[in-house]
Amino acid sequence: MKAVRVHAYGKPPSIDDIPEPSISGPLDILVEVGAAGLCRTDLHVIEGQWAEKSGVKLPYVLGHENAGWVREIGSAVTNVAPGDPVILHPLVTCGLCRPCRSGVDQHCENSRFPGIDSDGGMAELLLTSARSAVKLAPGLEPVDVAALADAGLTAYHAIRKALPLLYPGSTCVVIGVGGLGHIGVQCVLATTATNVIVVDRSDTALELAGSYGKVHVVKADGRQVQRVLELTGGAGAHVVLDFVGEQGAEADGLAMTRRAGSYFVIGYGGRIEIPTMDLIFTERNIIGNLVGTYTELDELMTMTAEGNVRLHTQVFPLEDINHAIEDLEAGRLPGRAILVPNRGRRI
Amino acid sequence: MKAVRVHAYGKPPSIDDIPEPSISGPLDILVEVGAAGLCRTDLHVIEGQWAEKSGVKLPYVLGHENAGWVREIGSAVTNVAPGDPVILHPLVTCGLCRPCRSGVDQHCENSRFPGIDSDGGMAELLLTSARSAVKLAPGLEPVDVAALADAGLTAYHAIRKALPLLYPGSTCVVIGVGGLGHIGVQCVLATTATNVIVVDRSDTALELAGSYGKVHVVKADGRQVQRVLELTGGAGAHVVLDFVGEQGAEADGLAMTRRAGSYFVIGYGGRIEIPTMDLIFTERNIIGNLVGTYTELDELMTMTAEGNVRLHTQVFPLEDINHAIEDLEAGRLPGRAILVPNRGRRI
Amino acid sequence: MKAVRVHAYGKPPSIDDIPEPSISGPLDILVEVGAAGLCRTDLHVIEGQWAEKSGVKLPYVLGHENAGWVREIGSAVTNVAPGDPVILHPLVTCGLCRPCRSGVDQHCENSRFPGIDSDGGMAELLLTSARSAVKLAPGLEPVDVAALADAGLTAYHAIRKALPLLYPGSTCVVIGVGGLGHIGVQCVLATTATNVIVVDRSDTALELAGSYGKVHVVKADGRQVQRVLELTGGAGAHVVLDFVGEQGAEADGLAMTRRAGSYFVIGYGGRIEIPTMDLIFTERNIIGNLVGTYTELDELMTMTAEGNVRLHTQVFPLEDINHAIEDLEAGRLPGRAILVPNRGRRI
Amino acid sequence: MKAVRVHAYGKPPSIDDIPEPSISGPLDILVEVGAAGLCRTDLHVIEGQWAEKSGVKLPYVLGHENAGWVREIGSAVTNVAPGDPVILHPLVTCGLCRPCRSGVDQHCENSRFPGIDSDGGMAELLLTSARSAVKLAPGLEPVDVAALADAGLTAYHAIRKALPLLYPGSTCVVIGVGGLGHIGVQCVLATTATNVIVVDRSDTALELAGSYGKVHVVKADGRQVQRVLELTGGAGAHVVLDFVGEQGAEADGLAMTRRAGSYFVIGYGGRIEIPTMDLIFTERNIIGNLVGTYTELDELMTMTAEGNVRLHTQVFPLEDINHAIEDLEAGRLPGRAILVPNRGRRI
Repeated sequence: MKAVRVHAYGKPPSIDDIPEPSISGPLDILVEVGAAGLCRTDLHVIEGQWAEKSGVKLPYVLGHENAGWVREIGSAVTNVAPGDPVILHPLVTCGLCRPCRSGVDQHCENSRFPGIDSDGGMAELLLTSARSAVKLAPGLEPVDVAALADAGLTAYHAIRKALPLLYPGSTCVVIGVGGLGHIGVQCVLATTATNVIVVDRSDTALELAGSYGKVHVVKADGRQVQRVLELTGGAGAHVVLDFVGEQGAEADGLAMTRRAGSYFVIGYGGRIEIPTMDLIFTERNIIGNLVGTYTELDELMTMTAEGNVRLHTQVFPLEDINHAIEDLEAGRLPGRAILVPNRGRRI
Repeated sequence: MKAVRVHAYGKPPSIDDIPEPSISGPLDILVEVGAAGLCRTDLHVIEGQWAEKSGVKLPYVLGHENAGWVREIGSAVTNVAPGDPVILHPLVTCGLCRPCRSGVDQHCENSRFPGIDSDGGMAELLLTSARSAVKLAPGLEPVDVAALADAGLTAYHAIRKALPLLYPGSTCVVIGVGGLGHIGVQCVLATTATNVIVVDRSDTALELAGSYGKVHVVKADGRQVQRVLELTGGAGAHVVLDFVGEQGAEADGLAMTRRAGSYFVIGYGGRIEIPTMDLIFTERNIIGNLVGTYTELDELMTMTAEGNVRLHTQVFPLEDINHAIEDLEAGRLPGRAILVPNRGRRI
Repeated sequence: MKAVRVHAYGKPPSIDDIPEPSISGPLDILVEVGAAGLCRTDLHVIEGQWAEKSGVKLPYVLGHENAGWVREIGSAVTNVAPGDPVILHPLVTCGLCRPCRSGVDQHCENSRFPGIDSDGGMAELLLTSARSAVKLAPGLEPVDVAALADAGLTAYHAIRKALPLLYPGSTCVVIGVGGLGHIGVQCVLATTATNVIVVDRSDTALELAGSYGKVHVVKADGRQVQRVLELTGGAGAHVVLDFVGEQGAEADGLAMTRRAGSYFVIGYGGRIEIPTMDLIFTERNIIGNLVGTYTELDELMTMTAEGNVRLHTQVFPLEDINHAIEDLEAGRLPGRAILVPNRGRRI
Repeated sequence: MKAVRVHAYGKPPSIDDIPEPSISGPLDILVEVGAAGLCRTDLHVIEGQWAEKSGVKLPYVLGHENAGWVREIGSAVTNVAPGDPVILHPLVTCGLCRPCRSGVDQHCENSRFPGIDSDGGMAELLLTSARSAVKLAPGLEPVDVAALADAGLTAYHAIRKALPLLYPGSTCVVIGVGGLGHIGVQCVLATTATNVIVVDRSDTALELAGSYGKVHVVKADGRQVQRVLELTGGAGAHVVLDFVGEQGAEADGLAMTRRAGSYFVIGYGGRIEIPTMDLIFTERNIIGNLVGTYTELDELMTMTAEGNVRLHTQVFPLEDINHAIEDLEAGRLPGRAILVPNRGRRI
């Protein structure tokens, strides 16, 4: 089968013809990939930034945001059947450790991460687990939802944790309306009656955010902290969702957070630097966020099926991976890049 | 009346004879001070570190941890009567803003803070509010409980927030067994079945901690992070309560916190410095903590009356304030210093 | 001033000319009533059903859902000023007991209830407390919001408690789209992405519910339980909000509640009758609901100001109280009856 | 192997020699049973009360509270190994439905219940799932813990749900200090600083409760409601845990519950009967409870290993099942009856 593989860090991946993977464990499933999202993490992988952390052996297949159709299932699989359209939670989890038994799959003590530490979904077939598969509702196509598997799930996970703080009359700031943030804005609007302020450097991004519903938009032109304070009577926001997490957004985000408020770190790359006195004097919280749970992915699919969430995408055939990478690096992509290994169910 | 007043920053306070304060507002109460705790914040006030933040006009009376007996009450006071022994929540709050109406008094939008920004309790009489007064149960004396008003409340507040995380089988690290931490250890033991690890530089402090119940003690000798990791199978603790917050404790605390765990900043003076990637990759939280609520002070008094919490103190007459300060600065105080303006109810 | 008073149980109230009330306590406020809602509880009061429970001495003024303009304030009032338009939390609370200090004002240990146990708002002036007053945002008029003070608050309070259960993909049944229920439907739609099923006997009510957004409507024609089970794949709803609570709705509501689900009792009049085995075998909960908190009323006003909630009303001059009562008894009122003692701010 | 089987409802079970069960599924485990608890539910099964609900085909093996040693494991089992001592969660769950993925195993949509609807643990061997097995800490023996698998878990589950309500100064009533209640009292004492009141008809039971720590004991002699009200200043308890649920305990329990409090139904057999008005006027809750989750069983084992919980038992050889049943029916059992099919690990 065709697959996008990294052979050497610092070099573009190539399209290889490799043997098809096959089912071995009782909960294994084999999926015909209908769509695989491309994200900045893939660029970092190619550059070698994840080499040590993942310990993956080259060459291997990229792709950690996947959706498609089930082709084959292991002996103990009961939740999906061959032919089912599915979106795939990014982690393959054990189901037996305390985090799995508590429903926080992303902290599984025995997980693997296809596309990061083992073969991923930028290929005609992906070997994963029944525990990762969420069946798609009628009307949802893999190509329309794939990027929700990781980018969307990460955004929704943070928002779900913030929900108890977002009462009517509260304020929620969203920093960054990119691949994660544009889903984040839609999720906040669908699940709360909070006051939403969106901050971004790009007018196009702010316009997109405005199209989702009633939001205040603030251009990140150097005066963004001051503008947020003005919009909140000088107090700051109850919740700040930072989808950037670098290049100053992390300091901005903390400065926009009011007394007893919470700053959610979702994007990464920068550093948190703050005196302990400043945290205790205002009793603010800094909340880490990592992907999300299986049930959260299921909920996000429900919202998508009901029209509350819509991905902004640009579709490429699998072979065009390096064009997609060039466009992403050059900032020429208006939406999330989606690679399509299979145009429809083949079985 | 006699009162301990700061006249100039950088100079020792003096014992002055000043006019007695008097009731003016309907919720005012006048309290004969039976005990006023001395803490490091008082040293910082004297040094001038709070000058700008508090904006207080010199000279003024120190003392923000107070207990005593009610002498006189305003026209609308119904919860205490003259003669009642009381402990006093450190803040005087409005009762009408959203934080007050939600029960999080410490974030009152119109508060004052006796001993910090107005005359405090190191005096024969203190003017405060009925909203700050918790009546003492029979058997509790002001001199035995005063330091719970701030130090104890702050410790208990953090622990109460951590409670949902401290299931049987979880681990809770307490860094620092001083004025706050020794109450903290007792509160954790009384309200959870978690596994407690206590970290301190001082053998005496660790011994004191051990006397409260079943705890693991770890000497902070440079290998404390490694020791905590060993005690937790390499994973770290679900909750770290940092009562120090400076001199490396803040980095240690984060390093001792496991995936999906929470680091509670209670002590202050140092800095949080951490890459956003380290927070998101492990989904850890950094939780600020500030004093506590009125109902939490009430609960802490219940635990004290029932023998679950016992303050470790050293008593001084009010006139010996400067000896107490010297002992505190020299590290010669085995427990919390308590100043006694009135030896018993005079009315 | 003019006031609607009950003189004898079982007889229509009369419009009396009585002395104006006046400020005495420091937190008292005197309000020119702009609107007072009429509800079924008023009918029950007139019939004498509340005589023993309230212990009120006749004659007294009806009216427990009030809004208007502040005329005069007590010496300690800081949150409202003369001239401010306000809506009034139905209870006058002490602010000092544990429920008040925890923010659950409706359980105040020293409250009074104007319109039930003391003179209410069907009069030109109402004496109440600054603790009960929520200032109206520009654009909100007393006549448009008064019935939110009790009916609306009660609906929103129950929904706010149910929020953590209403994840996307869950189902929420609303039984009864009357004075409370029509607000309830709007609140659920504004604050969740749950699947809403509305049950009522009246086609008009179901049509009104449908006009608020995406809901499934089920006619209460005897097959309503079966219909709800069909719509939920046989499982029932995660949350059932019963705004009727009598005439079979209480049994229906429990039967519509799925395993591990919660049945919220809001309306009253009937009885809960269920074997303990049926509750434990399915682990269902029965949740009582009473009015709401001050901050919830504030949040409901925010949602109203932002257009998320709109009351369906019919306005009467104060003098027409007995016409309004007749219409309510005869089922001729398409919306909530609102009595108007003052047509606009007089000061 | 030897097994206790029901052949006909209404007749005593017999000890049969039947074929050994064997592993078929990948997550199956085969356990040498070291101890099987006998409880009232077994009596009800024998009487035929569960015949319709369970649909089990006779003859079948009794026993739903089991512990022992793993003999053999399926191909996908990673959490236990042959030889491990284990206690077994009563349900065999699928791991793939939403309740399983949320950690609330007891609501699994595809579960089976050994001892109720399929062969149970009153036999030399039990076939169950790796998902049900909690490994025992060194020092814990199957015979000492088996009855915690169901009776203990059910008690702890209810208490864990009640924890957020049990602040210091609150009151918790425990009705019934039998097989479940005596574990309940120990769990409340170990995990809270609440005020505990224990109610039972038997002086021996009350004495046992008193031996666990500081509790108030109230004899259920007809004046128990009045006594609880007296002990709570007339207000009632914040939480009532009813381990009886029949013969008047259910009405008592509700009457002992204060405003805004919660009544937890754990025992069963009786009926809840209450006007909706009484629930809403006081805003009380009625909370159903069913077994518990896998992680709760794990936590209960931790508490047991640390000496916080100790079962009160009476041990019988498997062959003496009918003596044990007679003793239980006659009220001659001072503790929980435990049947021992294997005296120690045979492998």
